[in-house]
Amino acid sequence: MSATLKKTKKSTIGRHPERGSYDRAAAHAILDEGLVAHVGFDTGDGVIVVPMTYARLGDEIVLHGAAASRWLSSFAEGRDISICVTLLDGLVLARSAFSHSMNYRSVVAFGRAVLVEDDERKGVAFHALLDHLVPGRWEDCRQPNRKEIDATTVLSMRLDEASVKVRSGPPKDAAKDMQLDYWAGVIPLALQAGSAIADPDMPDARAVPAYLASYTR
Amino acid sequence: MSATLKKTKKSTIGRHPERGSYDRAAAHAILDEGLVAHVGFDTGDGVIVVPMTYARLGDEIVLHGAAASRWLSSFAEGRDISICVTLLDGLVLARSAFSHSMNYRSVVAFGRAVLVEDDERKGVAFHALLDHLVPGRWEDCRQPNRKEIDATTVLSMRLDEASVKVRSGPPKDAAKDMQLDYWAGVIPLALQAGSAIADPDMPDARAVPAYLASYTR
Repeated sequence: MSATLKKTKKSTIGRHPERGSYDRAAAHAILDEGLVAHVGFDTGDGVIVVPMTYARLGDEIVLHGAAASRWLSSFAEGRDISICVTLLDGLVLARSAFSHSMNYRSVVAFGRAVLVEDDERKGVAFHALLDHLVPGRWEDCRQPNRKEIDATTVLSMRLDEASVKVRSGPPKDAAKDMQLDYWAGVIPLALQAGSAIADPDMPDARAVPAYLASYTR
Repeated sequence: MSATLKKTKKSTIGRHPERGSYDRAAAHAILDEGLVAHVGFDTGDGVIVVPMTYARLGDEIVLHGAAASRWLSSFAEGRDISICVTLLDGLVLARSAFSHSMNYRSVVAFGRAVLVEDDERKGVAFHALLDHLVPGRWEDCRQPNRKEIDATTVLSMRLDEASVKVRSGPPKDAAKDMQLDYWAGVIPLALQAGSAIADPDMPDARAVPAYLASYTR
């Protein structure tokens, strides 16, 4: 796969091009950290955006989501989609209202999503989807049976045409505003995991497995 | 405004309808808690999904985002969009791979976005956008001047056709799986704010204002 993502009319960054890149490794890092992708496509009756879980497999993104399943049959012959994954890193408070911003890392990708139908590839996708949420989980649960494999729809899209956008660091006020008497800076934001909560229906008290006890985000 | 959102072919929830609702108050609560909306529309050259900041003003959603600004001129005559706001609450680890899920609250809305051009309405939108990020901030920064108002594009969409989807609580395994020897439960997730970081270019050390020191999410 190419180290650079495809820059097209759609994937070219307009505003703040200095925050953008077409670097595949940067896109991979953001995709690997995110948990939810927002996926948009034309339903034939207008555009819809739905949240889906996903995982990256090399230069492929696999997607799964109940919210989209009503539309999934229409993917049998492939369907053009856009995927956006956004990580929020902070609120950027400038001296001027105008210069307020957010620190974030995002990927916007375009491609043709197709149904994954081959059993072996579907199995690889399930494994990736689970281990993307919690590394190690796939080996510590009952793996899908025939009926469950058939009942689960997975989409795949090649990551090729995409852009990355990142803002970080302190606010950037205009020079004339720097002496204004307002507090300026950043409030950091991060998605954080709390302590694991056992299912109250678990038949016996059991220790939280090590890979969960040490789970952080 | 109606207490119930408009249920159309597009906004009707397919999978897990028990998790869905068309309750306006529930949608408002999710929109008021979220920080980023994922907005999808047809560029004329395919669908794009971009992250935008937003705020709710009654039954109106106002949107602002540099990422979309390249497309914004095309909104002068209005453009159909879909907005999705998703709050992640947890990873749901079931005994079976198949029953893994996420706890979340999401709104998927559809409507026609138009440019806000009236100065007074634009001012109200700016105020709402800033105070949606940090309540109280609007009164503690330099407010926009003529040039900045003209340079900022704000979109507005009426919240009318939309659905709400919520999953919460422990995993729901099939009865036959309940005795399996796997840990089951939830890893809670939440977007959390850290301590405010002062801009290193602030000319003097100054205390973090109370509304920022007490900022939580």
